[in-house]
Amino acid sequence: MTTVKVEVSGSYCVDIGAGLLEELGVRALEVAKGTAAVIVSDDTVNALYGDRAETALVRSGFSVCRFVFPHGEASKNGTTYLNLLQFLAEHSITRSDLLVALGGGVTGDLTGFAAATFLRGIRFVQVPTTLLAAVDSSVGGKTGIDLPAGKNLAGAFYQPKRVVCDYETLRTLPPDIFADGCAEVIKYSILGSPELYDHLLEKGADFDTEAVIAQCVAMKRDVVRDDEFDTGRRQLLNLGHTIAHGIEACSHYEISHGRAVAMGMAIIARAAARKGYCTAECAEAIERVIRRFGLPVETEYSAAALTQWALSDKKRAGNRITLVVPRKIGHCDLVKIPVSELQDWMEAGLPL
Amino acid sequence: MTTVKVEVSGSYCVDIGAGLLEELGVRALEVAKGTAAVIVSDDTVNALYGDRAETALVRSGFSVCRFVFPHGEASKNGTTYLNLLQFLAEHSITRSDLLVALGGGVTGDLTGFAAATFLRGIRFVQVPTTLLAAVDSSVGGKTGIDLPAGKNLAGAFYQPKRVVCDYETLRTLPPDIFADGCAEVIKYSILGSPELYDHLLEKGADFDTEAVIAQCVAMKRDVVRDDEFDTGRRQLLNLGHTIAHGIEACSHYEISHGRAVAMGMAIIARAAARKGYCTAECAEAIERVIRRFGLPVETEYSAAALTQWALSDKKRAGNRITLVVPRKIGHCDLVKIPVSELQDWMEAGLPL
Repeated sequence: MTTVKVEVSGSYCVDIGAGLLEELGVRALEVAKGTAAVIVSDDTVNALYGDRAETALVRSGFSVCRFVFPHGEASKNGTTYLNLLQFLAEHSITRSDLLVALGGGVTGDLTGFAAATFLRGIRFVQVPTTLLAAVDSSVGGKTGIDLPAGKNLAGAFYQPKRVVCDYETLRTLPPDIFADGCAEVIKYSILGSPELYDHLLEKGADFDTEAVIAQCVAMKRDVVRDDEFDTGRRQLLNLGHTIAHGIEACSHYEISHGRAVAMGMAIIARAAARKGYCTAECAEAIERVIRRFGLPVETEYSAAALTQWALSDKKRAGNRITLVVPRKIGHCDLVKIPVSELQDWMEAGLPL
Repeated sequence: MTTVKVEVSGSYCVDIGAGLLEELGVRALEVAKGTAAVIVSDDTVNALYGDRAETALVRSGFSVCRFVFPHGEASKNGTTYLNLLQFLAEHSITRSDLLVALGGGVTGDLTGFAAATFLRGIRFVQVPTTLLAAVDSSVGGKTGIDLPAGKNLAGAFYQPKRVVCDYETLRTLPPDIFADGCAEVIKYSILGSPELYDHLLEKGADFDTEAVIAQCVAMKRDVVRDDEFDTGRRQLLNLGHTIAHGIEACSHYEISHGRAVAMGMAIIARAAARKGYCTAECAEAIERVIRRFGLPVETEYSAAALTQWALSDKKRAGNRITLVVPRKIGHCDLVKIPVSELQDWMEAGLPL
């Protein structure tokens, strides 16, 4: 087992290991004051791991209830959020009790936002069961829901009390969902580690799970520590994401987040090469590792459509928008551009 | 004009004076970075002051839009909250822009919660137009909405960037609404100032508005500074409120917050006297000042009904609940009791 310690508003441990789900109760007990725990999960994950999580919590003395919602990004909305809050109130959950987010990014974001706002804040633990959640969304304290107008438009910065990542759970979900997480792992390699890039290109999906997750979490930890509230350097973590949010929205969320991020990284890399921010070889190397994982590097949507969605993105500030632009494998820069130039960037990144 | 400076997570000024609504634009400009301002208001207050607020903001260069919702506590719900978020997204509001809460406690709580969570946090200014909002809800950073299960069950701690209180607006609203705010003013006198108590008993509703608001804000500021996140001393501000929330809920919010707080203070005072925490004279003095303002000191609801609602209150932690108990005029204590004893306290405070 590997433990990565995160020190931000509050400090907490990210435990990464095989079979940790069995120890969930013991690990939750170390950060809980109360006696009730609410497992929040989607129907897919609940069917796979809900009973094991509940058994582990009950064994440590928690009284447990479960809130289960339909799987998929479409559930990360205001209605599910309000239903969850009402569920907590009806079950007389108090400020001493604990929420347990058992699942992927949707579950973690939704549960974290509910934890941030129920009674103006109660404790929660992240139990990521997807690679994407393990390396990205479960760490760093960004929580939230989608609005009809766009993704993640409402939310809070709110840190979990602990992250318990049983990486045996990651491989039982469909290969598609594992590949989604690989897009985020690739992102970390482009942002900060040529060694990780080489390892991923060599091993593909057979990378060293525990070591790679720990490295990604540690990299995210370092960025978040310097900029918890996302006013500067943390925006680097959005590599590929401004475009990805547009692709997801254009597809009415038929295209998954990971696939959209893969496309977004390839598009921004090609645009960066055409505009002289990086070499053509760098853009090709980025495409190569994305393809190595069977992930897409192109989109059918137009630059105009993507631009329109991108302008409703949170990263916009007044009439400027910040892009994350690759310079070489292992290094990216934040580039502020006028919103009027955004479509030109999109066009530069799309196939001719 | 009087300015009270509040120093918590961020520091901000509470400006109290006659005619300040005309200066709203200038004062907002000092804390805003962007160019857009969204006025959030209920239909009553919008009809009275919406145009003046908009004119003042436009004069200082803001582009202004307005979100207006039906007046009353029933609007402080999840649906209005989600509609407001969607409105902000559709109007392309960014993290640089500003929300302006123009109205009473409902408007301030709702707007503050939307500001806390839209794009994970944007700036907002409180412009209280009721006495209750001026002395209580606009200062201190408690924001939130009601759930079907109870009042203020969801929300965030989130401070405004400024509070602009034009006390000329307070007296144009119906006398009922002014009296509601008087209940909170009375609360401050019982919590911490025999001098304020004497002034209120002497002058009744003709108290010195600017000086009294400034004193109440300063008292609240001192409590909040010591305990921003409501884990200890800040709970003193809940004098009368645990019972009040039960009364409001039992009446399906037909009984206003201020009236309910008045009843709650009278009930807890009588219970405190019967249980030996204060003298019978102290309880009578509390009733006297409440009656001086034409506010009620009794409720028709049973101890059992009030207890049931009180147990869903945020102030409950596990199997204990904290009561705010008067010891003498100008001093109250926090008393933790097992929830099993709560009904007995309620019964001790109700008329035989």
